[in-house]
Amino acid sequence: MDFIKQPMEIENRSMEIIAPYLAEYKLSEAEIKVYSRMIHASGDVDYAKVIRVHPQAIEAMQQALKKGAHIYTDVEMVRTGINKKKLASFGGEVHCLVADEKIAAEAKAQGITRSMAAMRSFGKALDGAIIAIGNAPTALFEVLRMVEEEGIRPAAIVGIPVGFVGAADSKELLAKNDKVPYITVEGTKGGSPIAASVVNAVMYLIDNTR
Amino acid sequence: MDFIKQPMEIENRSMEIIAPYLAEYKLSEAEIKVYSRMIHASGDVDYAKVIRVHPQAIEAMQQALKKGAHIYTDVEMVRTGINKKKLASFGGEVHCLVADEKIAAEAKAQGITRSMAAMRSFGKALDGAIIAIGNAPTALFEVLRMVEEEGIRPAAIVGIPVGFVGAADSKELLAKNDKVPYITVEGTKGGSPIAASVVNAVMYLIDNTR
Repeated sequence: MDFIKQPMEIENRSMEIIAPYLAEYKLSEAEIKVYSRMIHASGDVDYAKVIRVHPQAIEAMQQALKKGAHIYTDVEMVRTGINKKKLASFGGEVHCLVADEKIAAEAKAQGITRSMAAMRSFGKALDGAIIAIGNAPTALFEVLRMVEEEGIRPAAIVGIPVGFVGAADSKELLAKNDKVPYITVEGTKGGSPIAASVVNAVMYLIDNTR
Repeated sequence: MDFIKQPMEIENRSMEIIAPYLAEYKLSEAEIKVYSRMIHASGDVDYAKVIRVHPQAIEAMQQALKKGAHIYTDVEMVRTGINKKKLASFGGEVHCLVADEKIAAEAKAQGITRSMAAMRSFGKALDGAIIAIGNAPTALFEVLRMVEEEGIRPAAIVGIPVGFVGAADSKELLAKNDKVPYITVEGTKGGSPIAASVVNAVMYLIDNTR
C-alpha cells in the first residue's frame, strides 16, 4: 500500500490532475482556483461544464471577506466545511440556525423547512454578508425572495443546493437575478462540501496560508 | 416562486424521481433505500452505476447499530451529516478525532494526514464498530492496513473518500477485501454527505421515525 500521505502534496497533485479538464474553458486564474476546489470536493470533473460564476462574484466575496463579512449557511455541514480559523483571521464568523429549537418550532408551525425558516430569521443581517447554501433549495428560494421583496443585499450568494426537488429551479433563478453576484451550478448536482469549497477557495485567494 | 416547502413531501418526491434510475439494477428493497439516499445526497443519478454494496453490508450494519455500535468517521463533516439523535436512540455515538490537537501534532510529526493519524489512534475500539469515511483516502488505506496487519474487525466499512489522489485506489482495495463488509463507490466521486447518507439510510431501515 504505497500512497501519498502528505496533505499539501495530496492537494497539489490533485490540482495538477484537475487542470487539464479546465483547459477548454476561458477562465481567469481566480476562477481556475474556484473551479478546481469544487471539482476536488466532488471528485467529479463534469462539474466544469455546469459551474456558473457571475463576473463580479469572486471579487465581491474577496472584498466582503477582507472587511470581516460574516457567512450565513443553510445547514451545519456547510458550516463544518468552511475553514473557520481562516475566516476568523479576516474577522468573520459562520452562522447557521437550522438546528435551533425556536427555528424548528417555527418551521413546523408554518409547514416549511427549517433551513428556510432559518434564512428568513437572519433578515437584515444578510446585508453585505456572504450566503453559502449547500443543501436546501427552499433556503435559496427564500433568500431570493428576500432580495426581491425585502431589498436584502448580500455581498454574494454561493447557491449550490442539491437534489431533484427544486434544486435546479432555485439555482436557475439565482443565475437570472441581476441584484446579487453568485456562484452556482446548473442542474441537480451540488452539496455542502461543494458550497464550502467555494468559500475556502476564495479565502485562500486572499491569503494562501492555512 | 411556487415550490414544495414541506420536508417529508420533498423527500418522498425526491425518492419517486430517483426510482426509475434504479430500475435496471437488480437491487433488494434495502439496497434501493441506500442507493436512493446516496443519489439524493449527491444530486447525481450516475452514482447508480458505481455504488458497490457487499452482500452482507446492510445486514451487518443493521445488526451492529441495534447493538449500539459506535461510528468512527474520518472528518467532522461526516459526523455532522449523521443523524445523531437517531443513532443515540440505538445507543450509539459518533467519534471523530481529526480536529484533536494531539492528533494534529502526531500527524505533523509523521508527515501523514490528520484523518489517518486519527484512525490509527482508535485502534481496537474499531472492533465491531461502523467506520464511515467520506473524505480522506489516507484514512481508508490506514483502516485497511489495520484490518490486515492488526486484525481489527469493524462490523462494516462505509468507505467513500473523494478525489483524484488515492481515492479510487483506496476504494478498489476496500472492495477487494474479504474480511469486512463494505459499501463504497468506484472511481473518484464521493464525499461526506454521501458517506453520511449511507449510515442514515441504514438507520431508517431499522426504524423510519426521525
